[in-house]
Amino acid sequence: MNKQVILKKRPEGLPTKDIWSHETSAIPEPKEGEVLVETHYISLDPAMRGWMNDSKSYIPPVELDDVMRAGTIGKVIKANNHPRFKEGDVLTGWGGVQQYFTTDGQGHFKVDTNLAPMTKYIGALGMPGMTAYFGITEVGKIKEGDRVLVSGAAGAVGSVVGQIAKIKGCEVVGIAGGPDKCKYVVDELGFDACIDYKNENIYDGLKAHCPKGIDVYFDNVGGDILDAALAKLRRGARIVICGAISQYNSTEIKGPKNYLSLLVNRATMQGMVVFDYADRYKEAGMQMGMWMMEGKLKTEEDVYEGIENFYPTFTRLFSGDKRGKLVLKIKED
Amino acid sequence: MNKQVILKKRPEGLPTKDIWSHETSAIPEPKEGEVLVETHYISLDPAMRGWMNDSKSYIPPVELDDVMRAGTIGKVIKANNHPRFKEGDVLTGWGGVQQYFTTDGQGHFKVDTNLAPMTKYIGALGMPGMTAYFGITEVGKIKEGDRVLVSGAAGAVGSVVGQIAKIKGCEVVGIAGGPDKCKYVVDELGFDACIDYKNENIYDGLKAHCPKGIDVYFDNVGGDILDAALAKLRRGARIVICGAISQYNSTEIKGPKNYLSLLVNRATMQGMVVFDYADRYKEAGMQMGMWMMEGKLKTEEDVYEGIENFYPTFTRLFSGDKRGKLVLKIKED
Repeated sequence: MNKQVILKKRPEGLPTKDIWSHETSAIPEPKEGEVLVETHYISLDPAMRGWMNDSKSYIPPVELDDVMRAGTIGKVIKANNHPRFKEGDVLTGWGGVQQYFTTDGQGHFKVDTNLAPMTKYIGALGMPGMTAYFGITEVGKIKEGDRVLVSGAAGAVGSVVGQIAKIKGCEVVGIAGGPDKCKYVVDELGFDACIDYKNENIYDGLKAHCPKGIDVYFDNVGGDILDAALAKLRRGARIVICGAISQYNSTEIKGPKNYLSLLVNRATMQGMVVFDYADRYKEAGMQMGMWMMEGKLKTEEDVYEGIENFYPTFTRLFSGDKRGKLVLKIKED
Repeated sequence: MNKQVILKKRPEGLPTKDIWSHETSAIPEPKEGEVLVETHYISLDPAMRGWMNDSKSYIPPVELDDVMRAGTIGKVIKANNHPRFKEGDVLTGWGGVQQYFTTDGQGHFKVDTNLAPMTKYIGALGMPGMTAYFGITEVGKIKEGDRVLVSGAAGAVGSVVGQIAKIKGCEVVGIAGGPDKCKYVVDELGFDACIDYKNENIYDGLKAHCPKGIDVYFDNVGGDILDAALAKLRRGARIVICGAISQYNSTEIKGPKNYLSLLVNRATMQGMVVFDYADRYKEAGMQMGMWMMEGKLKTEEDVYEGIENFYPTFTRLFSGDKRGKLVLKIKED
């Protein structure tokens, strides 16, 4: 049987457990030209919160009574004359929060698990890693010597952003919640400094670590931290708007009251969606894989187990109680 | 004697009359290498409000007990061996709110009043015109067919922005306060439409006039209108942050709560300060002058008289009770 997590209601604020129902249906049969995939890992991403809202966005919302949308990686266990995929192939794509699904292969990519374990393909070599790569290089336009600030620095995207900036010769300051994460960001990931927003005044931290101001701010969080970063911009600074996790569960979004710093500093605030770079994922993946093999890019997954634990694992995205890429294991590799 | 307007206190909110004092001093003598200028017109600009705040900005604040900073145009009435300027030359620059001043000429430019009357050189051929030109072309990056939205459309900057966009083949919608201004913007300036924000719902107006959304928004006002524009962005839209007159007298700035539209639409919000384009003013001035002579660019000045009327004239910037470039005449040409 196929265990599935179905979206039943639209959340207001932080999603509660009853937003989803756990249902069981028959394992589907692949039609002619389709494959049946058994999911091994489900990717948990802050963006999922946005997909639950019934509002215009960069992709349509998840429909009520549909399987909850999620990135996945899994193995083809049955192929019905698929032109490209065969039994045993490992596919990453939009499988959703369920154990099995059939697909004609659109939006799914075959990966080589001899090169990297499955979890990397939904982490640093997947959407979060691609977001980091194109966000900081193409939108942030980092160059050697830039002072780069990254929020969510211990997270799936932020941790990679900061390391890429270090590789490119920038000075990098992270922002993360709690001393353990900050220690990880500096000692393990090699950032120059990390501000603990839960225990430090963010303005004081920026004064100490970015005394001359910020050239690039990569924003994953929005809210007060975005305002603090705006207050410290240098001339010609770039702000990459990648996410706003502090605001996703708010009914009233907090706009950045310091936005006129953009005027004073001739600065730019630009939004990004990783899908726009799909035709360059391969190029970026090769570069990232190279850095990983050279030991320059460290990535970590925080793995929880069992589809029945989808809800408590999902909430870790917003409580901050995780490190690196948050992943739900559905089946042993 | 020299009548001067001196900044005595820092304002909170809308400046009150007692912020300034009117003082009279002796007409200064130009030192060796200086000229004495008699001011004919003073430029009144929303930016003046920002210069009164004691906070880090793109130029230092006006010091207390100093003459209030303002752009001016006037005539050299005495030259003391100045290397470039002689008696009778007409200079535009930062003369301040006073009848006479001496200068070594730094930051002052000689203009030809045979080509255009004095007021144009502090209007469409001066700072507001340059702001419009570089803002909409360089920051807004308009191209033929773009749907361009301009707030403050009847004002010194907005009126020029919209006309340049029309010249460049864009569809242009203005936002202005009151039916008279809106009629002026459409009938006289040639915008395709104008939304009266004082009497119309701005969201409805945008729906009607920008049904497919906005490619470029040139923002002079901030606040609710910025939020409405954000809600209607098209993919890859550009927002030019030129000013925020609705916020200048607020003690708490209203941040744009719809800023995540930048993410959804991969849009850019960029601030500008006209001074950065100083080495290209001449090129822009020639282009603007050409358009004016061809009848493609219409500009208007709203002229009030007498330095003693500085305060009531200044308040028109914020009451909106003016059309085109607001100017204070100090002396007959």
